[in-house]
Amino acid sequence: MGEGIMRLGYVVTRVTDLEAARKHYVEVMGMEATDRTDSAIYLKGWDEYDHHSIVLKKADRPGLEKMGFKVHTYDDLAELEKRLIQYGASVTRFSKGENHKVGEGVRFRLPSGHVMELYVEMEYVGKALPQLNPPPWPEGLIGVGAPRIDHLLITAERPQETVDFLMKALNFYMSEMVVEKPDSDVPIAAWLFRSNTPHDIAIIPGKDEGLHHFAFWLDEFNDLRKAGDVFSKHDVPIDVGIERHGITRGQTIYYFDPSGNRNEVFTGGYIAYPDMPVVKWTVDQLARGIFYFNHRQEWIEGFTGVTT
Amino acid sequence: MGEGIMRLGYVVTRVTDLEAARKHYVEVMGMEATDRTDSAIYLKGWDEYDHHSIVLKKADRPGLEKMGFKVHTYDDLAELEKRLIQYGASVTRFSKGENHKVGEGVRFRLPSGHVMELYVEMEYVGKALPQLNPPPWPEGLIGVGAPRIDHLLITAERPQETVDFLMKALNFYMSEMVVEKPDSDVPIAAWLFRSNTPHDIAIIPGKDEGLHHFAFWLDEFNDLRKAGDVFSKHDVPIDVGIERHGITRGQTIYYFDPSGNRNEVFTGGYIAYPDMPVVKWTVDQLARGIFYFNHRQEWIEGFTGVTT
Amino acid sequence: MGEGIMRLGYVVTRVTDLEAARKHYVEVMGMEATDRTDSAIYLKGWDEYDHHSIVLKKADRPGLEKMGFKVHTYDDLAELEKRLIQYGASVTRFSKGENHKVGEGVRFRLPSGHVMELYVEMEYVGKALPQLNPPPWPEGLIGVGAPRIDHLLITAERPQETVDFLMKALNFYMSEMVVEKPDSDVPIAAWLFRSNTPHDIAIIPGKDEGLHHFAFWLDEFNDLRKAGDVFSKHDVPIDVGIERHGITRGQTIYYFDPSGNRNEVFTGGYIAYPDMPVVKWTVDQLARGIFYFNHRQEWIEGFTGVTT
Amino acid sequence: MGEGIMRLGYVVTRVTDLEAARKHYVEVMGMEATDRTDSAIYLKGWDEYDHHSIVLKKADRPGLEKMGFKVHTYDDLAELEKRLIQYGASVTRFSKGENHKVGEGVRFRLPSGHVMELYVEMEYVGKALPQLNPPPWPEGLIGVGAPRIDHLLITAERPQETVDFLMKALNFYMSEMVVEKPDSDVPIAAWLFRSNTPHDIAIIPGKDEGLHHFAFWLDEFNDLRKAGDVFSKHDVPIDVGIERHGITRGQTIYYFDPSGNRNEVFTGGYIAYPDMPVVKWTVDQLARGIFYFNHRQEWIEGFTGVTT
Repeated sequence: MGEGIMRLGYVVTRVTDLEAARKHYVEVMGMEATDRTDSAIYLKGWDEYDHHSIVLKKADRPGLEKMGFKVHTYDDLAELEKRLIQYGASVTRFSKGENHKVGEGVRFRLPSGHVMELYVEMEYVGKALPQLNPPPWPEGLIGVGAPRIDHLLITAERPQETVDFLMKALNFYMSEMVVEKPDSDVPIAAWLFRSNTPHDIAIIPGKDEGLHHFAFWLDEFNDLRKAGDVFSKHDVPIDVGIERHGITRGQTIYYFDPSGNRNEVFTGGYIAYPDMPVVKWTVDQLARGIFYFNHRQEWIEGFTGVTT
Repeated sequence: MGEGIMRLGYVVTRVTDLEAARKHYVEVMGMEATDRTDSAIYLKGWDEYDHHSIVLKKADRPGLEKMGFKVHTYDDLAELEKRLIQYGASVTRFSKGENHKVGEGVRFRLPSGHVMELYVEMEYVGKALPQLNPPPWPEGLIGVGAPRIDHLLITAERPQETVDFLMKALNFYMSEMVVEKPDSDVPIAAWLFRSNTPHDIAIIPGKDEGLHHFAFWLDEFNDLRKAGDVFSKHDVPIDVGIERHGITRGQTIYYFDPSGNRNEVFTGGYIAYPDMPVVKWTVDQLARGIFYFNHRQEWIEGFTGVTT
Repeated sequence: MGEGIMRLGYVVTRVTDLEAARKHYVEVMGMEATDRTDSAIYLKGWDEYDHHSIVLKKADRPGLEKMGFKVHTYDDLAELEKRLIQYGASVTRFSKGENHKVGEGVRFRLPSGHVMELYVEMEYVGKALPQLNPPPWPEGLIGVGAPRIDHLLITAERPQETVDFLMKALNFYMSEMVVEKPDSDVPIAAWLFRSNTPHDIAIIPGKDEGLHHFAFWLDEFNDLRKAGDVFSKHDVPIDVGIERHGITRGQTIYYFDPSGNRNEVFTGGYIAYPDMPVVKWTVDQLARGIFYFNHRQEWIEGFTGVTT
Repeated sequence: MGEGIMRLGYVVTRVTDLEAARKHYVEVMGMEATDRTDSAIYLKGWDEYDHHSIVLKKADRPGLEKMGFKVHTYDDLAELEKRLIQYGASVTRFSKGENHKVGEGVRFRLPSGHVMELYVEMEYVGKALPQLNPPPWPEGLIGVGAPRIDHLLITAERPQETVDFLMKALNFYMSEMVVEKPDSDVPIAAWLFRSNTPHDIAIIPGKDEGLHHFAFWLDEFNDLRKAGDVFSKHDVPIDVGIERHGITRGQTIYYFDPSGNRNEVFTGGYIAYPDMPVVKWTVDQLARGIFYFNHRQEWIEGFTGVTT
């Protein structure tokens, strides 16, 4: 047996203008376009070695088409498939190549309706650094120069069902949750992880199949300032930031891609382990959990209003 | 002859609750209270050596009572007094001790009605570091731990008159200005300096005698994050930030003291010299000049609405 | 089945002067002493929730007495025990309480002679932050304020044997290795991980049972400057730094505790996954791998000379 | 009257290989070459608006040929000339164009033998940013991307004579000095300023006409890490760093240009004013004053050994 689900491997997101999306993700975010078809563009960050972590799919509305989590071994995949079926999920096998450059895997829907895929292999491309005696960073990064994707946050009509599904069927662990009262264990929203980051996926209340945002990792706080400057230069609409999250302790800018998908550049946070006690946020303190600095601002209420 | 006006020496600000103000400036901002009377509290930052840089004066409304700029020599003071009179200002001499711990000086009003004082001496207290073999920072700083005040921004019904006054009578230099059109030389707003920072004082349109904010210096960008965290912990109302200024290139959080005086924690910016060509901002790009990240946000319009 | 080995749980280190060691780890490093006996002191960082991550043991010479890695579940522990025995290790069970505040577990020696323990439970103490609506950092941190331990680096006469042992018996993964030539797969030294950090343990050539250093995590680069300042104020002997590692891309200061144990404050580095291709460093470029800035300096040769 | 000497305007430095020097200052340091002759290259940083701040002069040995300080007005220049002559200096007038792109001025030697020039005008080139609605930083910076020069440090057989000269004839102010004993006022070394930085020029004991280093400003601490990485990539020999200075509180890397001139990248430090009390360092604590982190290291003794 291996390590199970290792990470958020890819996000397939709908975009309404493929060329505008390409310009944004390549020229502003600094990703590398590793492939392109008439209806899709494949992108990776400079510190990612698999073929892609984001797929832009031409569509008539923005939003999340599906997400893929990379699993360590085929034994893990088989075990997870078994557990999904036991849990009552409707699981489909997909074959190698059905997803461009991706090996075989399984597909299913979360209780919230979101399509999730598990897979073990993706064509190897390599980081933008050599594997032999590498310098600490590559030359010629463009714009924000985002090294990798980090997590995504989805909306669900009944978050608890999806949280339970992820934890029980797929061994996700919970780092933080929002509760009505301090002694409640019913998650109104939850942050879940498989890696040692505070979240690989989070679920908040909202419509089923909804995407609140997916996030890029940045290596440190100063990189947020650079990102904000780059966004301003390129007239990228900033939603909120620079802000501190109470939840995860991270630091952030939220912004929108040209199709209206909310994205985040995220840094900071603690190291999370499966035995870490869950941090709770009560609803009355939630504004501080979301935007620690500006928790008194009325515009925070609007933050959860826009999803795709 | 000496160096003329060296810096913004003190800000005398009205506060409606002296004890609440003390708690804020001492326990949140980390200033040292060097003296106290029934109606006033005197404060200095850890990296300041004069007796005070802020005076909190008990009053029934917030706002700026007056500001003091420190002059290098008494010859300079006499020369500046002469120039003020030549310029048509109504100048009053004040004697040593009339301002607590401050030597003799001159007092006058800017065309905008603000009271300004020039002085040469203030009682020496010393930094929070020893003068002999000092470590780079003092132990035991509280809260934000602001090292010093940096600048203030006032409002004027006719900014140009006050800008002219400061430049012509007092040898202030202009770093940046807002103009209607690129070829205009009429300042709608202006940033002026005597030190090598991009602004010791700035003037924007608004009511006469108005205070938009006075600012504390922080040594680097990360200190803004710490300040934001401290503000949140103490429920200090944040107005805007963390943001980048286009004007001055600085980085900022605006917030309010308990009486409603807007304050700023500011870092960054370039080194300014008297021969530096003035940077111009046209009105159509002004939002970016004020808040570079969030220049598309509607709430920027409200930013100049609140003054004291 | 759970997640196997989760992290480096504790380092038991010999110190020649217990009180001097306490002062250093508490007053300089900012750890909390959670317990004390006549011959040992137990310490944790502010962001750790288990009872201790460092044990200082009174001894007549410095060095590493043993290390403990925390395992997710008792099923994992049993499975790892089985694998260790299959691999030919001599494994001893220890009962709850045999290690102060630690549950039952297994003990064995690495091929390099170092004593390693695996355990599932340690008494819970909690972070220095509340679990309910926590602020992002605790008040009143002392000195360096190290949040947690990060990794350790041991020496072995035949590193490859210990590397194989850790990878094959305990499922450690390799992030980076030193090789003679680019096409060699024989590790002269290796960096191994179980968490998503570039190393939980590393092995370099040297005497068996030797300790090169154990490291504290710091949250960002600026914290290294603060650490350096604190070390200087307390006359802590700095070995090297501030430096950049080529290997792991991290940033560092090496220094010695009062008994002569080398410690490190470490930040940065990438996220590591089990499917990450191994980075290789050839011996001719190793100086850059160790100290990227000062790779031309002769004093780098001396760096591996001192171990305990 | 104007503001007197405003800043270190230019450093004319000897280089033994003009093309190697050009590559270093342009491709590693990121300066712009604004002009070139057979025997000289003129360079400016991206945040400088005058034609050049560094002149590389072909020579058979490294070192400082001369330095130029920019004066605010011609009245100031005349006044300074008069004071120099009163002080006993041998002053020569040079005409416009005698120094390429520089207006008329005066030339003299410091008591230490170094050639200094004062001038009022240099051809305007402009920053790498527009004067109208500028972004906070320019695109396409190369290597270190140094924005400007900051200061220089020279050696003198009798430092006090040169310190007195600079302070009495040219109105430099002292921020810090090295003394034998706490109550001594005889400067063994001194840091002097005309701007509000802790030093525009410093003088330490050594041979007359000697150059210890000249320094580039970097905007913040993280930029030192980037500089160190760039130096390593380009095999620039680092002398010392990353280090903290006790003196000035700045942070630093020292390194050598291809001809063996020591350079520094410097950031941090406090704001200095003419009325600031002088900080004293006693000889027994000087190592901490120079390199605060590694003050116990023997290699600090060697630091003052190499000058050009």
